[in-house]
Amino acid sequence: MPTVDLVADLGESFGAYTMGNDAQLLDLLTSANVACGFHAGDPRVMDATVRACVERGVSIGAHPSFPDLVGFGRRAMDLTENEVRTDVLYQLGALSAFTRAHGVRITHLAPHGRLGNLVVTRHDYARAIADAVQAFDPTLVILSQEGEMAAVARERGLRMAMVGVVDRAYEDDGTLVPRSEPDAVLTDPDEVTRRTVRMVTEGVIASRNGRDVPIKADCVQLHGDGPAALQLAARIRGELQTAGVRLAPLDKILDVPAA
Amino acid sequence: MPTVDLVADLGESFGAYTMGNDAQLLDLLTSANVACGFHAGDPRVMDATVRACVERGVSIGAHPSFPDLVGFGRRAMDLTENEVRTDVLYQLGALSAFTRAHGVRITHLAPHGRLGNLVVTRHDYARAIADAVQAFDPTLVILSQEGEMAAVARERGLRMAMVGVVDRAYEDDGTLVPRSEPDAVLTDPDEVTRRTVRMVTEGVIASRNGRDVPIKADCVQLHGDGPAALQLAARIRGELQTAGVRLAPLDKILDVPAA
Amino acid sequence: MPTVDLVADLGESFGAYTMGNDAQLLDLLTSANVACGFHAGDPRVMDATVRACVERGVSIGAHPSFPDLVGFGRRAMDLTENEVRTDVLYQLGALSAFTRAHGVRITHLAPHGRLGNLVVTRHDYARAIADAVQAFDPTLVILSQEGEMAAVARERGLRMAMVGVVDRAYEDDGTLVPRSEPDAVLTDPDEVTRRTVRMVTEGVIASRNGRDVPIKADCVQLHGDGPAALQLAARIRGELQTAGVRLAPLDKILDVPAA
Amino acid sequence: MPTVDLVADLGESFGAYTMGNDAQLLDLLTSANVACGFHAGDPRVMDATVRACVERGVSIGAHPSFPDLVGFGRRAMDLTENEVRTDVLYQLGALSAFTRAHGVRITHLAPHGRLGNLVVTRHDYARAIADAVQAFDPTLVILSQEGEMAAVARERGLRMAMVGVVDRAYEDDGTLVPRSEPDAVLTDPDEVTRRTVRMVTEGVIASRNGRDVPIKADCVQLHGDGPAALQLAARIRGELQTAGVRLAPLDKILDVPAA
Repeated sequence: MPTVDLVADLGESFGAYTMGNDAQLLDLLTSANVACGFHAGDPRVMDATVRACVERGVSIGAHPSFPDLVGFGRRAMDLTENEVRTDVLYQLGALSAFTRAHGVRITHLAPHGRLGNLVVTRHDYARAIADAVQAFDPTLVILSQEGEMAAVARERGLRMAMVGVVDRAYEDDGTLVPRSEPDAVLTDPDEVTRRTVRMVTEGVIASRNGRDVPIKADCVQLHGDGPAALQLAARIRGELQTAGVRLAPLDKILDVPAA
Repeated sequence: MPTVDLVADLGESFGAYTMGNDAQLLDLLTSANVACGFHAGDPRVMDATVRACVERGVSIGAHPSFPDLVGFGRRAMDLTENEVRTDVLYQLGALSAFTRAHGVRITHLAPHGRLGNLVVTRHDYARAIADAVQAFDPTLVILSQEGEMAAVARERGLRMAMVGVVDRAYEDDGTLVPRSEPDAVLTDPDEVTRRTVRMVTEGVIASRNGRDVPIKADCVQLHGDGPAALQLAARIRGELQTAGVRLAPLDKILDVPAA
Repeated sequence: MPTVDLVADLGESFGAYTMGNDAQLLDLLTSANVACGFHAGDPRVMDATVRACVERGVSIGAHPSFPDLVGFGRRAMDLTENEVRTDVLYQLGALSAFTRAHGVRITHLAPHGRLGNLVVTRHDYARAIADAVQAFDPTLVILSQEGEMAAVARERGLRMAMVGVVDRAYEDDGTLVPRSEPDAVLTDPDEVTRRTVRMVTEGVIASRNGRDVPIKADCVQLHGDGPAALQLAARIRGELQTAGVRLAPLDKILDVPAA
Repeated sequence: MPTVDLVADLGESFGAYTMGNDAQLLDLLTSANVACGFHAGDPRVMDATVRACVERGVSIGAHPSFPDLVGFGRRAMDLTENEVRTDVLYQLGALSAFTRAHGVRITHLAPHGRLGNLVVTRHDYARAIADAVQAFDPTLVILSQEGEMAAVARERGLRMAMVGVVDRAYEDDGTLVPRSEPDAVLTDPDEVTRRTVRMVTEGVIASRNGRDVPIKADCVQLHGDGPAALQLAARIRGELQTAGVRLAPLDKILDVPAA
């Protein structure tokens, strides 16, 4: 019976500003990537988000970012390896105070936004994330796609979970079509849902050249920004269950050892 | 044999800015209050400060602040109890990532600057600190003076360490003469040193009215801003040792249980 | 023919975060208080807000705040007079770059949030605002209520515009009933609209004791947070016009001299 | 009689943190690049720096940066052209409040740190700076070296001043030897001083291949970080005067029109 984790970014409100529909999205998830204050999130938002996750049994991951609140972590920064490592440690620690206060632990780490993109191609950034994880808690699962991050994690024996990106086109070699190309993003809900179910149940994705490419997706990334996204998320969840897929948080899938 | 902890604020540099003389001061201390990024400190500074403390066997405490970098945490802010509690949790967590990375744990917490002043008089702020400590790690020692913070901590059975303020005048009731009064701050090194030794060895301090007042000082607060302060710190340390006082970090004095 | 300015806070989005319904609200206004980056607003938001105001002929005022993005400027800070003065100067200047780029000038200044409350009661903060205005552009109109700010402005011969707060109860002496009291905020749209029209056309407001109190309202403050607020704003505008009130920006009402 | 402007970065302290030796350096300068709060500087520092410049007749320029306080503006950020343009406008405006308060105007703009490096090679960043200057005050002089910034400025008829970098080696084509190469930075005070005088009086610099290369230096950049730098700055000033060079601020050299 295939099993998958449904994950989304959560806790991205800040001060008086609300982002996303965390309450509704939470009911669809098995795991959450929680913002840690560098691109979004503040101590109140983090506390409330962790509490809500614990109440619903949703696994909690850190979602560290470049230090760029006004750019929402979406702008590339050229940092040293040590700057990335220490920024990620700081954010992991900050989030852990709230998981500790609510009696749970952080199960995973998913680098946010541009940092998340860059760890796929920059070896120094991938190493920095791996170093932070090893120093903080080597049992943490790192969420990424194929690339430098996955390579470094495997080399060190760190846990990796592959994230299936359901609304993006793939190349024949299993990498994502760059956003800059016209057909990179898929918008048809039927197609997105169908591809997601196949990805999880059959382990294949049709490339943009129509070839069936093998793909491993431990997690499926959902979005909650707006009613249409929420509806699509609910539909994907429903059709995965209809197809006999078991939904479970990462620590149930990947045998994360207890603390 | 009387024992005392010598403590100072450390890691208050930020980015390209240097503050204090941490390297020299460290050799005089048994404990350090390490800035957590809200009034000073950044992830690199925190990492380096924790490493330096570990190398010298100096105990590490969190030094959380109001979120006010430009004001160095010295300006009063009127926050809710929940804002103080969550801000302190965030900072405790952030620091703990670095203690964890260096194989040690946080032993204590000393609220910084204006927050440190206000917990003495504001019951809600004192409660917020106590709540954060209980949620994060109830074995942490809270550093403060007599007042609301000490009262709340005692009521809850939390560990308190009383900080002897060596360069300030005291009232007959054992409280500090407010800074606003002309003779509140003592500047004569001879007098400051003499008073410190008496405070630790005899448990008394002469009030500004010349009366001997009982005082409990588990820690003596040193300063390292400038050559004169460093010299005074070294002299106080020397004369305490000459007087037969044992210097030890808080966890050796207060029997903090192992993690 | 009575004339009034309809004003609202604008440009309070930040980075990826949207706040308010600026586009709809703009069509109802004659003046806008534009956030300057300390509690809300960023350089892109400021640029777009100023451009939109210029396109619709809406007067532009600065809306400076305490430096507290996470608290949205709603939390009291105990700053020195010089800190308030220089923080306000900085924000005035920053906004003026965008008015300059769009070929207009700043007509007024309305302190935001808690700073706006405190200038009514703290003489030092009122003086700081007045000093900043005099140094930057002594023809700027200061928006406030009766209190220290108005007193200092009058004493110095600075231009003041009194803001009628339409959704708040008044005392017999023309001051606002403090928010902490149960009947301080009015929520019935009929009542709010009726009171607003009377305030502008007759120059009186019924106090909470039912007494008619004289009141001067050069501006009426509207809100755009949510559909109900927008609807009420549109209704107030409509009924003021029906009652024969002329709507005009501050510089048309108060004869602000040309640059 | 050759004339040159002596310029340095000023006002880079922040809150409780001091950087540089502004007081001593000021006596050696004819112009200053004043930090605007994004990499350094705060409203108090800006106010005091502008006042000190005015007292000594030193011309004031804006020194805008990437928004990166913890990185001191030294780290590359990949922003859009509009982000750079609006960030620079914001900083120009903020500084102008203080020049206005002190009765002078901004004479020039020198992009700081990594932004200053990148405008030499990135056409979009150079355009963004030029757009900001044109929108804010087209009479501002832009300080840069040969490259995209100079090209865009010339194309638009904006004023440029070429900055002679006295402690760096040059290639045969008049560009700087990249910092990454071993002999890029010159440290011998005799050599640096001699090269500076030749640069200003003869308009040539010896390339690292020993060839005399023509160079235009309207300004010479001095540094004040530490006693050695201050000493060298004083010596360069002295030997330029001995060589008959007139020292004058940019607006005296480049005929900046009055406001």
